[in-house]
Amino acid sequence: MPSEETKILLRESEIPQRWYNINSDLPAPLAPPIHPGTGKPLGPEDLAPLFPMELIKQEVSMEPYVEIPDDIMRIYKLWRPSPLYRAHRLEKHLGTPARIYYKNESFSPPGSHKPNTAVAQAYYNKQEGVRRIATETGAGQWGSALSFGCCLFGLECTVYMVKVSYEQKPYRRVLMETWGATVHPSPTTLTKAGQSILEKTPDSPGSLGIAISEAVEDAATHDDTKYSLGSVLNHVLLHQTIVGQEAKAQLKLVDEEPDVIVGCVGGGSNFAGLAFPFVKDKISGKEIDIVACEPESCPTLTRGLYKYDFGDTAQLTPLVKMYTLGHTFVPAPIHAGGLRYHGDAPQLCLLVNQKVIEARAYHQLTTFEAALTFTRIEGFLPAPETAHCIRAGIDEALKCKDTGEEKCILIGYSGHGFFDLGAYERYLADDLVDYEYPQEKIEAALKDLPEIQEPV
Amino acid sequence: MPSEETKILLRESEIPQRWYNINSDLPAPLAPPIHPGTGKPLGPEDLAPLFPMELIKQEVSMEPYVEIPDDIMRIYKLWRPSPLYRAHRLEKHLGTPARIYYKNESFSPPGSHKPNTAVAQAYYNKQEGVRRIATETGAGQWGSALSFGCCLFGLECTVYMVKVSYEQKPYRRVLMETWGATVHPSPTTLTKAGQSILEKTPDSPGSLGIAISEAVEDAATHDDTKYSLGSVLNHVLLHQTIVGQEAKAQLKLVDEEPDVIVGCVGGGSNFAGLAFPFVKDKISGKEIDIVACEPESCPTLTRGLYKYDFGDTAQLTPLVKMYTLGHTFVPAPIHAGGLRYHGDAPQLCLLVNQKVIEARAYHQLTTFEAALTFTRIEGFLPAPETAHCIRAGIDEALKCKDTGEEKCILIGYSGHGFFDLGAYERYLADDLVDYEYPQEKIEAALKDLPEIQEPV
Repeated sequence: MPSEETKILLRESEIPQRWYNINSDLPAPLAPPIHPGTGKPLGPEDLAPLFPMELIKQEVSMEPYVEIPDDIMRIYKLWRPSPLYRAHRLEKHLGTPARIYYKNESFSPPGSHKPNTAVAQAYYNKQEGVRRIATETGAGQWGSALSFGCCLFGLECTVYMVKVSYEQKPYRRVLMETWGATVHPSPTTLTKAGQSILEKTPDSPGSLGIAISEAVEDAATHDDTKYSLGSVLNHVLLHQTIVGQEAKAQLKLVDEEPDVIVGCVGGGSNFAGLAFPFVKDKISGKEIDIVACEPESCPTLTRGLYKYDFGDTAQLTPLVKMYTLGHTFVPAPIHAGGLRYHGDAPQLCLLVNQKVIEARAYHQLTTFEAALTFTRIEGFLPAPETAHCIRAGIDEALKCKDTGEEKCILIGYSGHGFFDLGAYERYLADDLVDYEYPQEKIEAALKDLPEIQEPV
Repeated sequence: MPSEETKILLRESEIPQRWYNINSDLPAPLAPPIHPGTGKPLGPEDLAPLFPMELIKQEVSMEPYVEIPDDIMRIYKLWRPSPLYRAHRLEKHLGTPARIYYKNESFSPPGSHKPNTAVAQAYYNKQEGVRRIATETGAGQWGSALSFGCCLFGLECTVYMVKVSYEQKPYRRVLMETWGATVHPSPTTLTKAGQSILEKTPDSPGSLGIAISEAVEDAATHDDTKYSLGSVLNHVLLHQTIVGQEAKAQLKLVDEEPDVIVGCVGGGSNFAGLAFPFVKDKISGKEIDIVACEPESCPTLTRGLYKYDFGDTAQLTPLVKMYTLGHTFVPAPIHAGGLRYHGDAPQLCLLVNQKVIEARAYHQLTTFEAALTFTRIEGFLPAPETAHCIRAGIDEALKCKDTGEEKCILIGYSGHGFFDLGAYERYLADDLVDYEYPQEKIEAALKDLPEIQEPV
């Protein structure tokens, strides 16, 4: 019987004990990452300066499950199992026969799903004697999560924060500092990458690409320091699968199986965390629409090419096969700062390419409209990123109203919007716009894609 | 056995079905409120222009319990039952034999305990055909909660926000607007009270006292509009007792009874909500230290007089018997904006006067020190108000470390600090100070207290 309750809760003892590794179930093999210098497939030794060995093993593991260590589980329990909500009020408001559920990851201390991997990454670094972790952050969600994770394991954390965000979002910075992190506005004079940018452009506002280069260089040039990434990589997506496994157990408690799953996609870790445990079922034959929601102004999955590309603007990272808008792509200044990456996680891209996962793009205004409806009906204020799949969920529920179908819709509620009220203010003041991304501009950026022969 | 789990959860079906009314158990009768014009005890008819009749009944009820209507319960379930946390990591960090629990009210959509009464007040107003509710807010926590409550019941909400806060805390304002409220910087030209202030002081930064006068006038002069208060009154404290009743049930689940309960006090509703269900036990003979924590710079309970006084600066509200620093008291600009009221709830004051509840005052810096420890050890970022009882809880745990006592300590975690990062920034930058409140200044403010003969 579908839930009459508002929140479907698991006990702490019911938290899944293992992460689910989609590598073991992918319908086609993942193309290997390529070394940017040699043009050859990357080996573990190439990653060793940047990541602890256990994470490198997870990155390439084909085992279907990875046990979650007790020390990580203890910290997960600060907010896990996260509640699965039945959106009774929203259903009634829409007049839909659909049943809408949302998996609420906003109650973690940093306010999003990000700490599911930040805590795990901090743990494995601590285990292998690392003293400090360097990372980049754009809008600040990932930097906050890693600061939190490092703080709880007694690691130092250095965050290269895109300068324009550093200046515009001081409270995000302060949150990281409250957890003890050191936050630098990037580009800095602390790295060669930063110095070379500042020599050419002293007033550079920074970019995620530059910040990645700085954090990678910091880690590569300090023996006691490693690097950490908040999305895209296999091990990051792996850690997030706790979300979907919990959601599945929660739905089972109320005799439900999802007909539609919607989640927002920046680099792909939030979406994969919710969706991958259900992708396994879909590959085994279950009928589920699994929909990745991205911004029209950064339409990686819907209008990008499925090709090898660099992860960063400066072409320092390995090349991976993914949908990409080109590493020179410059996103429009939408408020869903976490959804502005030119590429996406290779595992997710393969599943989109194999048509297991469908991708849809949404304009900014319609996502804020959905967010406002959600806030005024369900009460909770979503992040602008989350608003993308709320839009998709509402649209699906309205389709059911037309067709009379009683579908079960699962929304990935990835984070709260308490740090995004500047965006809501502009939306309420009718001061937000949509950004039509011209096809010519995308094609121009895609011209710069490197020509890589996929290894057999 | 004390909890090995991190969160002690109740099911939604285990939410207490009734609010607890301390009036039925007070060790002495409550002195009646006095009409500011007639000098006589207030009757229900005096309150009728401001409050719906059901709330007026609750204000004077002597029944031990009041049933919670289903429509309120359905909305409570968005965040209730709230989790009771065992602070395993903090205990270990402090090296204390004490067991520390905190009741976490920060997961409500507005982020604090305030909606427990905001939702109830909105409901009763809606029931009685009210179209709009007017209220005041200082730092914005109460205005946010009432905006949320009104939004979910389809009521209009007008918030008079102290002008200096309106300008300094734009995101709090936007949060209210996102829930559909209209927010005015007070003093406004919309009320006579506001006009008269602006005539004398065009640049007035406003004050809570002025904002109260404006909201009361707005309600009194519009037939379809009522007024709402976020603390102090009996019915407000009543609605908050859901918190303590839940905490009691949760502690029982792990075979615990609190030896010490600590909560922060502004007007008293947060503290009363947690403590009153346990006060009942204490009056029946249980040994519990129940400690109300307030700022040294607004030491109402610790250095005020227990006398009749006005609730507002303009002397428009009824007179109530309470601990007061005088209605002309001007608080120092500490960051715990919710703890700067010159008086306190009459029910709470009576219990302090009867020595059932103990009061302690804390300086700002030591509360932020405790908050920083808490954030870095337990992970969650508390509001500066909440930091006051975290300080008290840590102090109690450290006392146990000295004495070896294995006490059970219960902390009221009233709200998160995501809107207070400006204060954390200043604390981290060593830019916060303590405010010694000179005894002469308190005595001067107390000289203005009206002389009221307590009715027999």
